[in-house]
Amino acid sequence: MKVNRDRLAQHFETISQYGKFGETGVCRPTLTPVEKEAFLVVSEWMREAGMSVRIDNFGNLIGRLEGKRKDAPILMMGSHLDSQPYGGRFDGTAGVLCGIEAVCALTEAGLTPDVSIDVVAFCDEESWRFNKGVFGSRGIIGQVELEELSITDKDGISRREALIAFGCNPDELQQSVYPPNSIGAFLELHIEQGPILDSKNLSIGSVTGISGPVWLSVTVKGFAGHAGSVPMNMRKDALIGAADMIRAINQMVRRDEVPTVATIGSLKVFPNSPNIIPEAVEFTIDLRDIDENRRTRYEQQIRAEIAHISDQHGLTFEIKENFQFSPTQCAPWIRNIIREESEAIVKECPELISGPFHDAIILAQVCDIGMIFVRCKDGISHNPAEYASYDDLAQGTELLMKTAVRVATKLGEREQGL
Amino acid sequence: MKVNRDRLAQHFETISQYGKFGETGVCRPTLTPVEKEAFLVVSEWMREAGMSVRIDNFGNLIGRLEGKRKDAPILMMGSHLDSQPYGGRFDGTAGVLCGIEAVCALTEAGLTPDVSIDVVAFCDEESWRFNKGVFGSRGIIGQVELEELSITDKDGISRREALIAFGCNPDELQQSVYPPNSIGAFLELHIEQGPILDSKNLSIGSVTGISGPVWLSVTVKGFAGHAGSVPMNMRKDALIGAADMIRAINQMVRRDEVPTVATIGSLKVFPNSPNIIPEAVEFTIDLRDIDENRRTRYEQQIRAEIAHISDQHGLTFEIKENFQFSPTQCAPWIRNIIREESEAIVKECPELISGPFHDAIILAQVCDIGMIFVRCKDGISHNPAEYASYDDLAQGTELLMKTAVRVATKLGEREQGL
Repeated sequence: MKVNRDRLAQHFETISQYGKFGETGVCRPTLTPVEKEAFLVVSEWMREAGMSVRIDNFGNLIGRLEGKRKDAPILMMGSHLDSQPYGGRFDGTAGVLCGIEAVCALTEAGLTPDVSIDVVAFCDEESWRFNKGVFGSRGIIGQVELEELSITDKDGISRREALIAFGCNPDELQQSVYPPNSIGAFLELHIEQGPILDSKNLSIGSVTGISGPVWLSVTVKGFAGHAGSVPMNMRKDALIGAADMIRAINQMVRRDEVPTVATIGSLKVFPNSPNIIPEAVEFTIDLRDIDENRRTRYEQQIRAEIAHISDQHGLTFEIKENFQFSPTQCAPWIRNIIREESEAIVKECPELISGPFHDAIILAQVCDIGMIFVRCKDGISHNPAEYASYDDLAQGTELLMKTAVRVATKLGEREQGL
Repeated sequence: MKVNRDRLAQHFETISQYGKFGETGVCRPTLTPVEKEAFLVVSEWMREAGMSVRIDNFGNLIGRLEGKRKDAPILMMGSHLDSQPYGGRFDGTAGVLCGIEAVCALTEAGLTPDVSIDVVAFCDEESWRFNKGVFGSRGIIGQVELEELSITDKDGISRREALIAFGCNPDELQQSVYPPNSIGAFLELHIEQGPILDSKNLSIGSVTGISGPVWLSVTVKGFAGHAGSVPMNMRKDALIGAADMIRAINQMVRRDEVPTVATIGSLKVFPNSPNIIPEAVEFTIDLRDIDENRRTRYEQQIRAEIAHISDQHGLTFEIKENFQFSPTQCAPWIRNIIREESEAIVKECPELISGPFHDAIILAQVCDIGMIFVRCKDGISHNPAEYASYDDLAQGTELLMKTAVRVATKLGEREQGL
């Protein structure tokens, strides 16, 4: 039972061509012809690994390796093949290709897992095309609402139209929902997208849990005026207020030395002219924590601080919640397996929190989950410079494979009531 | 000698149609067909007021009323007819239409001024189409460089091409430069573009001087990263640094209770995605003061503060100067005339600093200048909501006319060596 590092590398090299820009960039939007082409290539590799393949009505690519107990809850593995618009080669793709390689190594060794294994490339994890993502993973657990089909992208194409063009039938979504209790566990390998493994010079890590994000958008309104003519003390400058808020939010979270992270990533000034006092500023807050109570406390503090600063500056404000997910723990029994199996592969496999969310945070609602992180250079992700070495990815795949075998065995034992 | 308030109002109503959007908006970019149409209408009014009319090679519309001493330095009056892209009906237009009305009232009364009076609608005061403005006023005093003709607008049209399409000959610019010492004085009536007259409930004011602006653009660079995965203490967040800088600049100027104003009006985040730590932020600083030494001190303090904050946050920065003008004083003898003449028109005509700059700041390099401000509602300008009442504008025109007569007389006396 051996992972083929060179085959894995070849798969990455091949799939990086689909949506390639520049030397190392990838732009592979969900439900587009280029993603479909990538699906067809990956389908072939799934078949070579012994799996039967289908694309469901949510736009998920699913390969199934039959296990010994065909009616037992399955083990699911996977991630996504869609990318950020200015993305790299490994985010998501790693979870799909390493999952297939793990299965391929199993079947090459003549092994049949105790329960069936599905490897899935989930539709639209990245969320940017239709502004509401993790679509495929939400779909298979029955959490997609029909209204979502009418959301349009920036070109006016609706999700429904994109699904149909992709070959899916959006009128038969229910067909593609997995029955309750049919998924026994979910494993996802992903690049870390952060700097911790790289700074410790370690190749792989085990995830303890996934931070729960809450996304707020804040609009601050003041009063525009000519930059030359309104005295400083008569101004209601929305950007000065926003700058104070941004600073306060950053200091609040930083001061406490907690793993909580708060990011103001996007900001827009109106009318955004050098000689006009800003009338309005819109900015986003991305607040994440592995501890939901603490996150709620920070959110309350942030809301109070925004109100207070608005008041100080004579501004008005509005806060909208765009979405939120609760933090999620990886199952202790799966973390144990990952830790035990890692010992034969690497000297140290540290436990990490995942700041980014993944399809796993959705699957956690219906089954136990486990996640393996692979080092990525300088922690860079969502960027053409995103890089993970094939050696590290092969080590991650070996750990994924060994963990999958034992998780499948455990799921088989559960089925027997052992 | 009487200003015709209704004719003046009618002229405003008519000219507001050229480039009109919404109820009260005006978009009349420099050197466009719509500005040319407005020029032709205004030319007619100039002729009706007794002036000869021409469009020079800088794209200025110039009406001349011959005075008694044809070879004496002239009195020039005027402003501009081009508008902000999202502009109003009075900025610039007031100086042109009230100038014409003042001349018209003179000629209707059968008066011939002691020296000739030119009323000018200057080309491209607003600066936004080719990113370098006050073109026409710089042109006539010989301060336009040939390279400026190749600057293009956002559609790739060069200034040279725009001038030719407007009917000008950019190869004969020198023809349109006024000979040294041929302009004796310049008067500009303008809406205040600030809230002071309105807050005092006064209709007109006299300008003591025009603040000198310096425009800087600052680029702050940090390091992008996923908003979920990079711990707060490992971040180099360009927006957090920029927010600190913006706050520091504002507090520095505000604290000292000086007339200096500093505005950060435009700001851009890269890559500007809610879940990516900002890699870079670009923002503008508009710093203005009537006292050039104080402005220089603030500029030095601002540069030092930006360097200090960059350093604190592990960021790099770059500061570019886009342009600067020295502050300019209105001539005391013209201010005296304005004060004396105002006494018969209004109870109080306060002296104000002009924060915005105008064509007058350019003309001040070759002659004495005077400026009259007219109240604008809530100080709003560069906005469709910009508003000045026709009564106020008529009062301003009366003051302009009376001032013009006395300034012309003074210029005539000077010529005689009196």
